Amino acid sequence: MKASQFFISTLKEAPADAEVVSHQLMMRAGMIKRLGAGIYNYMPMGLRVIRKVEGIIRDEMSRGGAVELLMPIVQPAELWQETGRFDKMGPELMRVKDRHDRDFIIQPTSEEVVTDIARQELRSYKQLPKNFYHIQTKFRDERRPRFGIMRGREFTMKDAYSFDRSPEAAARSYETMFAAYKRIFDRFGLTYRAVAADTGAIGGDLSHEFQVIAQTGEDAIIYCPTSDYAANIELAEAVAPAAPRAEPTVAMAKTLTPGKSTCADVAAFLGLPMTKSLKSLVLATDRLDEQGNPAGSTVWLLLLRGDHEMNEVKVGKVPGLKDGFRFATLAEIDAHFGCKPGYLGPIGLKQPVKIIADRSVAAMSDFCCGANEEDYHLTGVNWGRDLPEPDLVVDIRNVVEGDPSPDGQGVLAIERGIEVGHVFYLGTKYSKTMNATFLDETGKPAFFEMGCYGIGVTRILGAAIEQNHDERGIIWPASIAPFQAVICPIGMDRSAEVKAAAEALYAELQAAGVDVLLDDRGERPGAMFADWELVGVPQRIVISDRGLKAGTVEVQGRREAQATVMPLAEAASQVGARLRG
Amino acid sequence: MKASQFFISTLKEAPADAEVVSHQLMMRAGMIKRLGAGIYNYMPMGLRVIRKVEGIIRDEMSRGGAVELLMPIVQPAELWQETGRFDKMGPELMRVKDRHDRDFIIQPTSEEVVTDIARQELRSYKQLPKNFYHIQTKFRDERRPRFGIMRGREFTMKDAYSFDRSPEAAARSYETMFAAYKRIFDRFGLTYRAVAADTGAIGGDLSHEFQVIAQTGEDAIIYCPTSDYAANIELAEAVAPAAPRAEPTVAMAKTLTPGKSTCADVAAFLGLPMTKSLKSLVLATDRLDEQGNPAGSTVWLLLLRGDHEMNEVKVGKVPGLKDGFRFATLAEIDAHFGCKPGYLGPIGLKQPVKIIADRSVAAMSDFCCGANEEDYHLTGVNWGRDLPEPDLVVDIRNVVEGDPSPDGQGVLAIERGIEVGHVFYLGTKYSKTMNATFLDETGKPAFFEMGCYGIGVTRILGAAIEQNHDERGIIWPASIAPFQAVICPIGMDRSAEVKAAAEALYAELQAAGVDVLLDDRGERPGAMFADWELVGVPQRIVISDRGLKAGTVEVQGRREAQATVMPLAEAASQVGARLRG
Repeated sequence: MKASQFFISTLKEAPADAEVVSHQLMMRAGMIKRLGAGIYNYMPMGLRVIRKVEGIIRDEMSRGGAVELLMPIVQPAELWQETGRFDKMGPELMRVKDRHDRDFIIQPTSEEVVTDIARQELRSYKQLPKNFYHIQTKFRDERRPRFGIMRGREFTMKDAYSFDRSPEAAARSYETMFAAYKRIFDRFGLTYRAVAADTGAIGGDLSHEFQVIAQTGEDAIIYCPTSDYAANIELAEAVAPAAPRAEPTVAMAKTLTPGKSTCADVAAFLGLPMTKSLKSLVLATDRLDEQGNPAGSTVWLLLLRGDHEMNEVKVGKVPGLKDGFRFATLAEIDAHFGCKPGYLGPIGLKQPVKIIADRSVAAMSDFCCGANEEDYHLTGVNWGRDLPEPDLVVDIRNVVEGDPSPDGQGVLAIERGIEVGHVFYLGTKYSKTMNATFLDETGKPAFFEMGCYGIGVTRILGAAIEQNHDERGIIWPASIAPFQAVICPIGMDRSAEVKAAAEALYAELQAAGVDVLLDDRGERPGAMFADWELVGVPQRIVISDRGLKAGTVEVQGRREAQATVMPLAEAASQVGARLRG
Repeated sequence: MKASQFFISTLKEAPADAEVVSHQLMMRAGMIKRLGAGIYNYMPMGLRVIRKVEGIIRDEMSRGGAVELLMPIVQPAELWQETGRFDKMGPELMRVKDRHDRDFIIQPTSEEVVTDIARQELRSYKQLPKNFYHIQTKFRDERRPRFGIMRGREFTMKDAYSFDRSPEAAARSYETMFAAYKRIFDRFGLTYRAVAADTGAIGGDLSHEFQVIAQTGEDAIIYCPTSDYAANIELAEAVAPAAPRAEPTVAMAKTLTPGKSTCADVAAFLGLPMTKSLKSLVLATDRLDEQGNPAGSTVWLLLLRGDHEMNEVKVGKVPGLKDGFRFATLAEIDAHFGCKPGYLGPIGLKQPVKIIADRSVAAMSDFCCGANEEDYHLTGVNWGRDLPEPDLVVDIRNVVEGDPSPDGQGVLAIERGIEVGHVFYLGTKYSKTMNATFLDETGKPAFFEMGCYGIGVTRILGAAIEQNHDERGIIWPASIAPFQAVICPIGMDRSAEVKAAAEALYAELQAAGVDVLLDDRGERPGAMFADWELVGVPQRIVISDRGLKAGTVEVQGRREAQATVMPLAEAASQVGARLRG
């Protein structure tokens, strides 16, 4: 491609509304252009990256046996009513009516449509396994779109759906996709982690997020540097302390802690470490009578070590809390504890509550907790001696750096990531609701075992930049760069030698399969170099009269501080080798 | 591709709602699957054709200097309000509100967005010409979607938009695109015609439709078999008869024609040719007062030869009718003619009307027309003698087969076509409404001269099939076939020789760049052949034990009645040659 036949539009300054570096750089490099909140034009420079990302995904999905089709953007509401998602989903599901006042949705994903295809097309176990995917525009009406195309409303996603005859076969399809995803992310040239994730109501352990590692990532990734363990924070298990609970050493005492209502304040005030303070959280669950009408509530006391945070997903798995919980109201707290929040604890309740203790809480001794009396705490509290053992001891907290790894192979570390892919075993969730069956070997109908596999195509661009940039601009991996190399001829319009050498090298690189851009715009060297550093082209070749006199050109990798002078005759092969290597 | 890794789903019968052959065959060949009215899943077999069509378009658009970007599907209403199309367009424009109750549209085309990009990005004449295009999903909420993906609601279109500094430069961009379109349609391998079309209010002659010739086409294409002339029926000029008007030979007489109210009935009743009868059409235009309120109407009498049809577009260009016209009401007709329709004519009016005569009418003599009295016609009527010459003589009719060609090179013929592409000079229509300017050489802002260029990507599939099919199925041109060749091994599962030969030939064809499918499904020969004839793969290679004993295979082109027996060793090169040739 020659610059004169392309469209290049760079900006010195990022627009004020671009909060994160990837958004700023994509705007400055002319890759995207805002059309509305969370809606972007993909400009020619950005579209080239998208097409390369899509190409790699297609290659590896096909190698993984998945077959590409294309499901519509505007989908009839009927199918979404079958699964209940039409009513259950919030306003992020964009609903629209046609001229006949019939309901449609603009697809955020395609489980319903693909299951509808499967129940019509896959009639026999002989046709299984089958994996259909498409790369399609999605729309999610985010309440607060932000971060450019990382959390846009309109975006491109690759979503695949596997259909199998048994959970075992579905697990094999899952593994095949997991392997394909690893190949895809390897080819992207990004640093990433496949992270075990929560499977929710489906159960089992077949759910992984593919996280691109970046300091600016929204997600906390838990991993063990000395083993393969990696999970997201929702799932990562906080194992029970190895050491047994210590024996009591002091007597329980009530202490005045005026105005000290947080664990941190209380511990500091009493001169205790946070690990000796107890955090009391009061939850409630609502009961329904046989007619489904409200019939009172149950109150739960959750106990965490003062320096730990509650993990909502883990709490949601506690027996009795699975069907939904909420924080208790002040009235409920007062009725059970006779005290306002800040001074609550498990001793001296007005009415009994269920007490759920985190594993680390059960191992505490000589600890301090609220006295259920304003401005007072208890110290030297011990399980068994001062109060009964908790009703349930279970993992309900987020792990922290330094916690033992659940695989026993070391301690946990935490880094930040951007979720760009997800592989997920769906089981029969959709096939049962939509009555999607095939005939098994005995001729009886059986529900499809399904899996779904997404990659945020446009999100990859943002994540790649968050991970790979410097003060001068983007640093694309060669496989997804808009151009792999750029030829910058200096004074091309006044030097016939430079022009001829540039054109010849351009042809040579093209013939060698390098996706090269010849910058024939006639810009000054400074402006030209700044543009390509901003855009992030991996290899730059500078051709000048001075160099040509010695038969040389200057080649500089985007991460390199210095250019390498090399013979013009070797430039094409060396640039090729740099891109491969 | 191996069939076992692909998805093939053929049907013996077409669904009842498939009216046209392309729709029937696409459904039967498993290329598309209906999701809702005018909304289709593109199944793997169909998507392959779409991708090939897109590939050819991208190639040639790029060669024509156009740059690809991607504009969003969901677009803010503001831009569409700027041009007035948000309010002016009917319900075919799908409107939607987001969670904040803001208006959006689902794009049927992108003039507004691309003009918005241009007015921000193209600041100087030095950046011109520029041509942006995208291949994107469109939505038009058709009142009556039909013909499968030929008139769907959701479809894929390539739309390009050129920006130029002057009408002359815009004409050059137009010519460049016209040439690119010819290359595109040539490469599709379809029989087509570039047909001059009406430019409406823009004026000039820069509008062409690209029509794929098919008997089932909705459009009438006018062309001259002995010259280059081709136009659509809206535009094709009906030239004035070469022979001068003949002298009167009979006297005017009033004749009883009881119940004969059509030209055909009257001519038959009177024993006259249709060319001697006059068709009277009464139109009306509404006047507005200075406040824009209705202020009465003007009545017009349009005269056509009995065997001719009115051309609405031509009538819409008659001075006085340009701002809109309608058929007159019965009350208006009675007020001016004192008679009901069926017996109207230009003689003996109650109130004066403007008389517009078609060119062929002005050349008539001794003709018959309504007497403005129920059940009576006049015969032997002659201009000048029995009534004054018409107020205006102008072309207001559709041409008919045998009319002289406007270029004087022969006579016109008519064939049917399916419009799949359109190139159109827009002038400053959008740039003026949206105040989209660049700085010209003198540093002054000037409006962009624009052109727009569309190709219905998914429609190409339907048109190709309407043109190329037989009783057994589709006949794809090699360039856009889902597969160029298919290897049908007979008894692959029981013959090691057949399996080995099939696999080897498959590898050889792939290495030669042929897009080949190996049918390893193990179907019986009859079912296998029927599938590929239905799908329409251009070349079929049958490998059998019997043939291999003689070292031969059978190769049969989709249009050939007989297979050619040839040495296995030559099959790959011969199939390659057939596909190129």
